[in-house]
Amino acid sequence: MAKKINVGMVGAAFMGKAHSVGYRDVAFAFPDVKCVPVMKEIAAITQTEAEAARAVFGWERASEGYEKVVTAKDIHLVDICTGNNLHKEIAVAAAENGKHVFCEKPMAMSVAECKEMIKAVEKAGVVHMINFNYRRVPAVELAKQMIDKGAIGTPYHWRAVYLQDWIMDPNFPLVWRLKKELAGSGAHGDLNAHIIDLARYLLGEFESVCGLMKTFIKKRPELAQTTGGLGAKASDKMGDVTVDDATLFLAKFQNGAIGTFEATRFAGGNRNGNRFEINGSNGSIRFNLERLNELEYYNAKDKAGQQGWKTILVTDAVHPYMRGWWPAGHIIGWQHTFVHQIYLLMNGIAAKKSPAPNFYDGLKCQAVLEAVEKSVETETWVKVQE
Amino acid sequence: MAKKINVGMVGAAFMGKAHSVGYRDVAFAFPDVKCVPVMKEIAAITQTEAEAARAVFGWERASEGYEKVVTAKDIHLVDICTGNNLHKEIAVAAAENGKHVFCEKPMAMSVAECKEMIKAVEKAGVVHMINFNYRRVPAVELAKQMIDKGAIGTPYHWRAVYLQDWIMDPNFPLVWRLKKELAGSGAHGDLNAHIIDLARYLLGEFESVCGLMKTFIKKRPELAQTTGGLGAKASDKMGDVTVDDATLFLAKFQNGAIGTFEATRFAGGNRNGNRFEINGSNGSIRFNLERLNELEYYNAKDKAGQQGWKTILVTDAVHPYMRGWWPAGHIIGWQHTFVHQIYLLMNGIAAKKSPAPNFYDGLKCQAVLEAVEKSVETETWVKVQE
Amino acid sequence: MAKKINVGMVGAAFMGKAHSVGYRDVAFAFPDVKCVPVMKEIAAITQTEAEAARAVFGWERASEGYEKVVTAKDIHLVDICTGNNLHKEIAVAAAENGKHVFCEKPMAMSVAECKEMIKAVEKAGVVHMINFNYRRVPAVELAKQMIDKGAIGTPYHWRAVYLQDWIMDPNFPLVWRLKKELAGSGAHGDLNAHIIDLARYLLGEFESVCGLMKTFIKKRPELAQTTGGLGAKASDKMGDVTVDDATLFLAKFQNGAIGTFEATRFAGGNRNGNRFEINGSNGSIRFNLERLNELEYYNAKDKAGQQGWKTILVTDAVHPYMRGWWPAGHIIGWQHTFVHQIYLLMNGIAAKKSPAPNFYDGLKCQAVLEAVEKSVETETWVKVQE
Amino acid sequence: MAKKINVGMVGAAFMGKAHSVGYRDVAFAFPDVKCVPVMKEIAAITQTEAEAARAVFGWERASEGYEKVVTAKDIHLVDICTGNNLHKEIAVAAAENGKHVFCEKPMAMSVAECKEMIKAVEKAGVVHMINFNYRRVPAVELAKQMIDKGAIGTPYHWRAVYLQDWIMDPNFPLVWRLKKELAGSGAHGDLNAHIIDLARYLLGEFESVCGLMKTFIKKRPELAQTTGGLGAKASDKMGDVTVDDATLFLAKFQNGAIGTFEATRFAGGNRNGNRFEINGSNGSIRFNLERLNELEYYNAKDKAGQQGWKTILVTDAVHPYMRGWWPAGHIIGWQHTFVHQIYLLMNGIAAKKSPAPNFYDGLKCQAVLEAVEKSVETETWVKVQE
Repeated sequence: MAKKINVGMVGAAFMGKAHSVGYRDVAFAFPDVKCVPVMKEIAAITQTEAEAARAVFGWERASEGYEKVVTAKDIHLVDICTGNNLHKEIAVAAAENGKHVFCEKPMAMSVAECKEMIKAVEKAGVVHMINFNYRRVPAVELAKQMIDKGAIGTPYHWRAVYLQDWIMDPNFPLVWRLKKELAGSGAHGDLNAHIIDLARYLLGEFESVCGLMKTFIKKRPELAQTTGGLGAKASDKMGDVTVDDATLFLAKFQNGAIGTFEATRFAGGNRNGNRFEINGSNGSIRFNLERLNELEYYNAKDKAGQQGWKTILVTDAVHPYMRGWWPAGHIIGWQHTFVHQIYLLMNGIAAKKSPAPNFYDGLKCQAVLEAVEKSVETETWVKVQE
Repeated sequence: MAKKINVGMVGAAFMGKAHSVGYRDVAFAFPDVKCVPVMKEIAAITQTEAEAARAVFGWERASEGYEKVVTAKDIHLVDICTGNNLHKEIAVAAAENGKHVFCEKPMAMSVAECKEMIKAVEKAGVVHMINFNYRRVPAVELAKQMIDKGAIGTPYHWRAVYLQDWIMDPNFPLVWRLKKELAGSGAHGDLNAHIIDLARYLLGEFESVCGLMKTFIKKRPELAQTTGGLGAKASDKMGDVTVDDATLFLAKFQNGAIGTFEATRFAGGNRNGNRFEINGSNGSIRFNLERLNELEYYNAKDKAGQQGWKTILVTDAVHPYMRGWWPAGHIIGWQHTFVHQIYLLMNGIAAKKSPAPNFYDGLKCQAVLEAVEKSVETETWVKVQE
Repeated sequence: MAKKINVGMVGAAFMGKAHSVGYRDVAFAFPDVKCVPVMKEIAAITQTEAEAARAVFGWERASEGYEKVVTAKDIHLVDICTGNNLHKEIAVAAAENGKHVFCEKPMAMSVAECKEMIKAVEKAGVVHMINFNYRRVPAVELAKQMIDKGAIGTPYHWRAVYLQDWIMDPNFPLVWRLKKELAGSGAHGDLNAHIIDLARYLLGEFESVCGLMKTFIKKRPELAQTTGGLGAKASDKMGDVTVDDATLFLAKFQNGAIGTFEATRFAGGNRNGNRFEINGSNGSIRFNLERLNELEYYNAKDKAGQQGWKTILVTDAVHPYMRGWWPAGHIIGWQHTFVHQIYLLMNGIAAKKSPAPNFYDGLKCQAVLEAVEKSVETETWVKVQE
Repeated sequence: MAKKINVGMVGAAFMGKAHSVGYRDVAFAFPDVKCVPVMKEIAAITQTEAEAARAVFGWERASEGYEKVVTAKDIHLVDICTGNNLHKEIAVAAAENGKHVFCEKPMAMSVAECKEMIKAVEKAGVVHMINFNYRRVPAVELAKQMIDKGAIGTPYHWRAVYLQDWIMDPNFPLVWRLKKELAGSGAHGDLNAHIIDLARYLLGEFESVCGLMKTFIKKRPELAQTTGGLGAKASDKMGDVTVDDATLFLAKFQNGAIGTFEATRFAGGNRNGNRFEINGSNGSIRFNLERLNELEYYNAKDKAGQQGWKTILVTDAVHPYMRGWWPAGHIIGWQHTFVHQIYLLMNGIAAKKSPAPNFYDGLKCQAVLEAVEKSVETETWVKVQE
């Protein structure tokens, strides 16, 4: 019988809801999971908020602030879904209390914070993981498997964008994601973090970067109220946007490949356009999060006259994670990536081994984010260093 | 506080799992739901099977055969996910015991059976519903809303296919879906039932039909064992396929529109290709279940030079059901249709009103299915009559 | 040095222009062509019309009526681009005068006319060809080559539509294509003729058919004036539409495959949607004329987990006819099919052999068209017989 | 009656063939063209080569070297389709002899050469034009018209790639396009030149750039023989690749927009992937040369719930240039852009006005190309200056 792992979650907004799905469904989809999570306690800024989330998301207890969760004796795992500025503080506290830590991306506000977090989990000997959930899209895992088996050969090009459009209205208010003190950065830490992690996962480590940041709308109404998901209502007062609306950069990889990255919240018509293409000597791969059940593959070894991009509907039983779900062609959604992530996390806890992407991956991603920021300041290429 | 509705489910295979999602997630996604289901008891052919499903799907009790479920005092709603040949028997028994009934499609083996079922639920005064879950795809609901507001004008054409390929291997065994005595028909009742219902929902009632049925592989190995989802293992013995592999038909609608329908399990490369296109005097609409988050719309009233098919990513908060899920661009999967269906069912029970598609819709669909079968036998056009 | 073939064309409208491209460009794209056409004379209903076309399309002489062309001593080949009602008369006259004959599709108004035409060309011993130009799309030729090599195995399904929308406006006038006495039929002979020919080319001969015809708009303004292409201006007077707006039919093929066909001019948003899909035991093929440079192929033999539809951009030098044009990825257009057709015709004349699709193919297509019409009248299945 | 313009072309390879289409077809498609070209003389490196091209492409005379063409009394317009290293020399000579000049892109090897060319044509008072033919794709012209009317509002993002894969085989030989002394640069001048021009056309002028260049395959076999199109045969001897295989850059525009550019010949599966997306405050536009008959448009002003990308099939009679061709849905190909370009050139000559893109545009593009090269050398941002 699988061991029970009591989970305490901090954060009850959009990400809290998404993480909850992971815990709710992991044993439903994967009865072979080696630890079974118990949704013990959810914490939020206020007790009211926590209680509301508890009732809807399916947690047993609710509490205010993160302190109770990180110290509760019966909690084994702390899940951090707060604003980025609290990740370090909560993760360190959780580790110091001997809890395993699952942290939403980006890992923290700076490389320095990441290092503190690593020190804490190493000292405590707990399992740690960062929620770069897009590694867990079956199509992305299939890409990884194929690349590892040589499907693209020597990589030449990485080409990724993460395009959104949810703040294009100049009257959309200053939510925490638009404030540097709470979010660290804007599209950069939010969206580039994802595609940097995917590039590391699929292609390898960065050598150097050169970037460009832009804030198109410099003043916005202050926030009156959040309204669920990424929604929000504006107040009458105006305030400064202190993060980037868009960050673009070029990259050289250690293996000789080169890449482009673009994160923006000003690409109208692209609701959630996390897209990448990789070109190598033997083939190419393309992915688009808005059609996450599909992977496109070009095999340069196909016979002449029959070469082309193949659209693989990644829903067959043989595809990564799909045995847990439905017959072929019955597609899954974005939320399923959280179930897959928690599956690996639970198995990691059973094995006492931090599954990738763990805090070391979080740090490496942060180092790239920071190098890009430095390149923007200095208007030149910057070597990526941890 | 929402009333609790105790559910008893009969059937623990692929469809049992899918229906379970509906009950598990309805209050998670829609806290405003007017009745909250309690997953009380699941029944299967054997106690072992039922128990296994209970543990994984999340039901409280397990039982063998359908009798306990339909008679249990604490059960309010019976959910029927068995082979088609048992629908009538269970539904009538459930109604006679005063239970609401939720029945998987197709409703039954014949129009006659459907009528018995209707008689039973009418007499009992219980709520009834048929699980034509594709009405509950947000893109389909959006299509319905748009059509009702005149987006396509006078309808001229309906063009639907439901293409699958899961039994193309001649060595795939004789599962119940390939046996007439258990399934009633093959691709026809399984797949055409869906697109007939969608045609009725979006376009209107049928006048007459003319069809063609075909069994490409006439002998197959008998079934050794099912293996989850639609999977199965073959035995050494051969047996007869007694249902259609494919059924095609032409249709005239009462409103003057004309249509084509095609259901097949022999369309290689189409894992679950439920697709339709409707053309009317003002515009056209296209849908493809394999990309169920998208709806394509052509507006003939767009200004000259800017006409074209628009791909609407149906994930905005304003789209049907999407307020229950994630921010725009974070797609949902096939399983979500069950949550939406159960949402309507629970609200129907609260209102003591059978929500569409109910048993009357099930009967109307069955009448079309039968008319097609008759047209195949007689090689001529057949009027659709209940 | 390639022999010169003097061409006389009858018809100076849309099709006359398109055929002219074939003669203009065949030696430009294919310097190895075995006969080189000389654009000697073009004929139209009036001398003015013929003269205007001569100047723009690039012909040497212009004449009124078809008589001069079919009798001119220096003309070797007569190209017929008139309304369908004149095909037989001109073809027979041309053959009697010893001219080779290239005739636009559909071949004639009836099977009986086709037979007269065949008698005439057989007696005269001239080369004959029907312009089913879609056989000459490189992607279609590639499909043919692949099918012949077993790419799809045993064929199960043919699924074709030819969707247009150019007469949906009820005020669009009664052009010749909407009058039975000039066109023979509407969408049926115009569009179904094409997809019937493609089915024969790619899949094989028909056994029986069952169809449905519909005229949505029964009265329209009489024609005031044509305005180029398919354009036209309406007069004040109303008249009867005497042809079908849409014709749908089911088909059984001699090899056991089954199929659906739909031709309509009322499918809004589909400007020229000639699309087909073929499913067989080893694979499937899809084509869409609006993206005629692409062919989609599903190979059921691809290894598990990497199956999917491959989009072949049919512009590589190894692809049919593409050596005559541009580097890979530099797409060709609809007009190029006429150049390819004329290439085969010229080589056929050099070899004194009528290249397919010739008059025998035209007859076979006409037999299917007529069988469908008969099935509509009799409301039952009709065997296809010549 | 339209004036005749005698054309002398220098260069008889792939581009010579493509330009020839422009002259062959301009009056066929556009009888209203104000000057009609006469294909008087074609020149190549050898008389044999010129003679072969003459016969196939349809020119009257053939000559060796460019001197005869630029001095011939009866020639009014010189068309330059040679390697880039000869553009300046021939253009200056042609201008000095009073000929109008039509020059293939990129304009020359350097900004300095461009300036010499401008001086020459200004002094001579002749009409001049650069063949950035992608401005003449109907979908691109439609984009231009829509942008000019406010369809996208304030531009935020430009995102363009030009992806090819024709030299990925390491054994593909050192054709002139891979030698710096003949081509100036590799993918940069060949492909980035196109997308830089499109960015200028659609978005506006550049402020500064920062780039990255890469040569993946540094040694290749020397060229034995070209084989038509972009094809070539390798010799046994190896030589150095002296140009870039790929060049990527970031850009800031004068209007505040930001952009990414990528040109590569190492993107497997992308035969001719010239693609761009523009995002602005009111909408977005996407284009893909491999589907050049289509334009995608997202209108942010569409009503909530019906927003999405619309695919406009740019083949209606109201679309730019399409009145010259076929009925809606009958697509055109890559070669048609040359006909449209020549149409503007002929009308420009009639009006004695150099149509855009003219030599001033060629210079501006060259200035961006050079700024990128300088940024690569200096590893920093470089301001674009003429």
